[in-house]
Amino acid sequence: MKMKALTTLFACAIAFATTTNADDALLSWNDTAPKKAIVSFVEKVTKEGSPYFVKPEERIATFDNDGTLWAEQPIYFQFQFALDRVKALAPQHPEWKNKEPFNHLIAGDMKAFLAGGEKSVMAVMAASHTGITTDEFDKIVKDWLRTARHPKTGRLYTEMVYQPMLELLTYVRANGFKTFIVSGGGVEFMRCFAEQTYGIPPEQVVGSSGKLKFEMRDGKPVLVKLPEVQFIDDKQGKPIGIETFIGRRPIAAFGNSDGDQQMLEWTTAGNGARFALLVHHDDAEREWAYDRKSSIGKLDKAWDEAVAKGWTVVSMKDDWATIFPPTK
Amino acid sequence: MKMKALTTLFACAIAFATTTNADDALLSWNDTAPKKAIVSFVEKVTKEGSPYFVKPEERIATFDNDGTLWAEQPIYFQFQFALDRVKALAPQHPEWKNKEPFNHLIAGDMKAFLAGGEKSVMAVMAASHTGITTDEFDKIVKDWLRTARHPKTGRLYTEMVYQPMLELLTYVRANGFKTFIVSGGGVEFMRCFAEQTYGIPPEQVVGSSGKLKFEMRDGKPVLVKLPEVQFIDDKQGKPIGIETFIGRRPIAAFGNSDGDQQMLEWTTAGNGARFALLVHHDDAEREWAYDRKSSIGKLDKAWDEAVAKGWTVVSMKDDWATIFPPTK
Repeated sequence: MKMKALTTLFACAIAFATTTNADDALLSWNDTAPKKAIVSFVEKVTKEGSPYFVKPEERIATFDNDGTLWAEQPIYFQFQFALDRVKALAPQHPEWKNKEPFNHLIAGDMKAFLAGGEKSVMAVMAASHTGITTDEFDKIVKDWLRTARHPKTGRLYTEMVYQPMLELLTYVRANGFKTFIVSGGGVEFMRCFAEQTYGIPPEQVVGSSGKLKFEMRDGKPVLVKLPEVQFIDDKQGKPIGIETFIGRRPIAAFGNSDGDQQMLEWTTAGNGARFALLVHHDDAEREWAYDRKSSIGKLDKAWDEAVAKGWTVVSMKDDWATIFPPTK
Repeated sequence: MKMKALTTLFACAIAFATTTNADDALLSWNDTAPKKAIVSFVEKVTKEGSPYFVKPEERIATFDNDGTLWAEQPIYFQFQFALDRVKALAPQHPEWKNKEPFNHLIAGDMKAFLAGGEKSVMAVMAASHTGITTDEFDKIVKDWLRTARHPKTGRLYTEMVYQPMLELLTYVRANGFKTFIVSGGGVEFMRCFAEQTYGIPPEQVVGSSGKLKFEMRDGKPVLVKLPEVQFIDDKQGKPIGIETFIGRRPIAAFGNSDGDQQMLEWTTAGNGARFALLVHHDDAEREWAYDRKSSIGKLDKAWDEAVAKGWTVVSMKDDWATIFPPTK
C-alpha cells in the first residue's frame, strides 16, 4: 500500500469517527420531544434490516434557509444586502435621486420606500443583483458577507445561523444523509456562504434564480445576470425545485413558514418513514417571536397542518438550549 | 469499535481499493493521444503539492449524454421513446387519425411527419411527455427502457452506451471527481437510467425541463408535467445550466457536438488546469460516421475550435478498442 493509499484510508477512518451518536451530536437541543423525534427517525431509517431502512443514496434531507438555518429578522438578509448594494452604487447613479424607489432609500425614508410594495422591492433586487456577471456578483456578495453586520446583534450575517441546526446538519450527514438547501432565497447568493457555513456544497443548494445570458467578452465567456425571473423556489415552487434540481423525493424536510408547507407535504407523501419539522420562532428574548401575523416568515397554515398531521414543531424557546454559535 | 463501525471502515477500504490506476481502468482505450491526455490531466490535478492540484470538492466533470455517453443514431433515443409512446397512446386518441402530425405517425409515413419540422416534433414531445404526473412519467420511461430495443443493433437502449466512457466515468470518480450529466435531453428522462447505467445519481443530472404544476389529488400532492418549456440545456444553455444547477465551474467537460461548444468554452476559461474533450463519430463500421453535415450531433464549429485550442478529439475508430459493453 502506497503512502497515498494509507492517507486515504486514514481520512476514511477519521470521517467515520465523526460521531453518529445523537447525544454527542445534538448538544444544543434540549432533551424534549423534537430531539427525540429526530433521533428516532434517523435510527429507524439507518438501521439495516429494519422495515424502514432507507439506502444511503436515498437519504435526502432538504432545509429551508431563511428562518430555518439562519435568522430572517428584521428583514431577509439578502434584502439587506440589496439595500446596502444600492446605497453603495448610488454615487454612480445621480439619476436615482429623483427616481422612485431609489430616492427614498437614499433619503433613508424606509416608510416611503415600503409604501411602494413589491414593485419597489423588485426594483432594488434588479439594481443590486443584475447587469453584472456571475463572477462579479459572487465577489460582491462575499465582500459583503465578510464585513456587513446585523443591526441588532452586531454579528456577521453568517454568525446569525442556528447552532442546533448546524448540529442537526452534521448529525444527519454523519448518518449518511445528503443535505440540501431548498429556499426562496437566490441560489447564487446562498452559494456564497452555504459551503463554509453549513457544509452544503453549491451543487446542493436549490433556490430562486434569474435568467442568465452567455456572452463572449474579449474572447472569454461570461454569464450575465438579467433582470428577469427564471424560477421562484417558494411555496408550490419548492416541490418543483426539488423535482427539477434534485430529482428525488426527500425523506426529511425542515422549514419554518407557510412557504415550506408544500415541501413538507411533498416529502411526507412518499412511501416509508418520513420526517417533517417546522421551527417556531417563539423566543423574543434570545431571537424573535413571530408566527401567524408576520409579514416575514409567516407561520399559519403550515402550523395548522403540522398539528393535524403530527409534524414536529420546534419551540426555539423550549427546545433549543442555545440559539447562535459563539462568535469568532 | 462496534460491528457497524468495522463494517463502515471496511466499506471505506473497499471503496478506496477501486483502482485509480489508468492502465487498469481505461481498458477500452487504445494507448493513443486522448488516453494519454486524460491520464496526464487527472494526475496533474490530483497530485498534492502540484501547482495544478485541485481540491476534491472542486473536481467537477460534466458529460453530455447523447453522442457522448450513449449513441444518438438514427434518431435521439428520447425521441424514439416519444414516437413509441404516441403509438401506444393512439388507440385512446381516435381523433389523431385526422390530426397532423399524429396521422402520419399512425400511418407510418415518417417522411410526411418530418416535413412538419420542429412543430411536429414538439407536438409529439408534448403528447408523450406532458399531461401526466412526474411519478407516472418515471414509470412509463422505465418500462420502455426495460423492453424497447435499438432498430439497428437490437440492444436495449441502455446497452447502447460507450464502454470507454463508462470506464472514464469510473476512473475520474476513483480520482475524487464528481461526475455530472449536462445534456440537452430531458432531465427526468435521463434520471430514469443515469444512476444504474452511469453511476450518476439524479441530483447530478442537468438537462432540459418542462414546467411543472403542484396539485393536490385525493389529498396527496402530485407534480403534473405541463406542455411548456422551462429550460433548454443546449448550446449557450449548457453553461447556464451548469451555473444554475451545479454552481461551480467544471474543470473537465466532455461532449461530441456543436451543442457542447459553449460548455467546453466555459470550462476551459477557468483558472488552473482544464480539460475539454470531443468524441468524433468516425466509425461507420462499429458505430456511425457523421460530423459537419449531420442533422443529429452536428460537429462543425466545435471541431474547428477544438483544433485551434488544442482540445482533445477522440476518434472512435482509432482511439477506442471497444465501443459498446457486452450485452447482459
